[in-house]
Amino acid sequence: MSEALTRAESLIRTIPDYPEPGVMFRDITPLLADASALRTVIHALIAPFDGDFDVVAGVEARGFLLAGAAAMEAGAGLVPIRKAGKLPRPAASVDYALEYATATIEAHDDIAAGARVLLVDDVLATGGTLAAARTLVAELGGVVVGTAVLLELEALGGRGVLGDVHTVFTA
Amino acid sequence: MSEALTRAESLIRTIPDYPEPGVMFRDITPLLADASALRTVIHALIAPFDGDFDVVAGVEARGFLLAGAAAMEAGAGLVPIRKAGKLPRPAASVDYALEYATATIEAHDDIAAGARVLLVDDVLATGGTLAAARTLVAELGGVVVGTAVLLELEALGGRGVLGDVHTVFTA
Repeated sequence: MSEALTRAESLIRTIPDYPEPGVMFRDITPLLADASALRTVIHALIAPFDGDFDVVAGVEARGFLLAGAAAMEAGAGLVPIRKAGKLPRPAASVDYALEYATATIEAHDDIAAGARVLLVDDVLATGGTLAAARTLVAELGGVVVGTAVLLELEALGGRGVLGDVHTVFTA
Repeated sequence: MSEALTRAESLIRTIPDYPEPGVMFRDITPLLADASALRTVIHALIAPFDGDFDVVAGVEARGFLLAGAAAMEAGAGLVPIRKAGKLPRPAASVDYALEYATATIEAHDDIAAGARVLLVDDVLATGGTLAAARTLVAELGGVVVGTAVLLELEALGGRGVLGDVHTVFTA
């Protein structure tokens, strides 16, 4: 890992026992707030897909921060994937299972048929949301060319769910 | 207005009677999804403040999309201003009035003392959220050097509340 990436990683703050006892929460906000670290991680996030995508799709809400930065850096379009009920005209909607409930994500019909889409999120946990996001993009007619995540929580097994996923850091 | 800005503005979709009868909802997602329009509006959003800010603070959730893009373009840091209950260690919290309720925004202590902050959001309506965000940034020790919004809904009077605010489009 480059010195710049090592420095960026050091800015991720670990908060023990949040949101519940025994959980180590990884807080990326100090990294985002550092201009140099932000640039470093956005470059690392999109580098494997350079020139291969037309659109960055980001998952609400923290994924929006990274997706906006990635889209601007790459000269791509930006499509928000939102939680249910936030969009006036969802064109597609995908349900997925959480630990004790189900959740729904939606998007507008703003992906051109055949558009190459890079999916972006901040943290890979169980992979459920990103798997649903892939389905959603496909339903809209887009082609997911990659899934890029800032931080992979290895113990939660998301890589086994998603298969091919690019992660900048692991914890 | 430049041709590029006129084209970008034409991509804002008006959805009548959403979220309730009589309201004309302005949907910016088709604009964001267009790579060229996204670049055009981000440049217009930050141009008046070029070189004057260290950090872009964006308001959850649509403000995150624009703030991420603006921070990356400007080489600035990125600070999310979140709704209550989303952050593990909020360092400041500001309540503000909505039409029939109150809301709260929070942020982490990721703004250095005296850092120059550009506040970014997608739509200026009544101005309540952005006024609260200014207070929040000040409580964290930042200096708000500007407030930049993609679309101003003039009839809702937010400019009267905020005073100095830069808006790219008006409706």
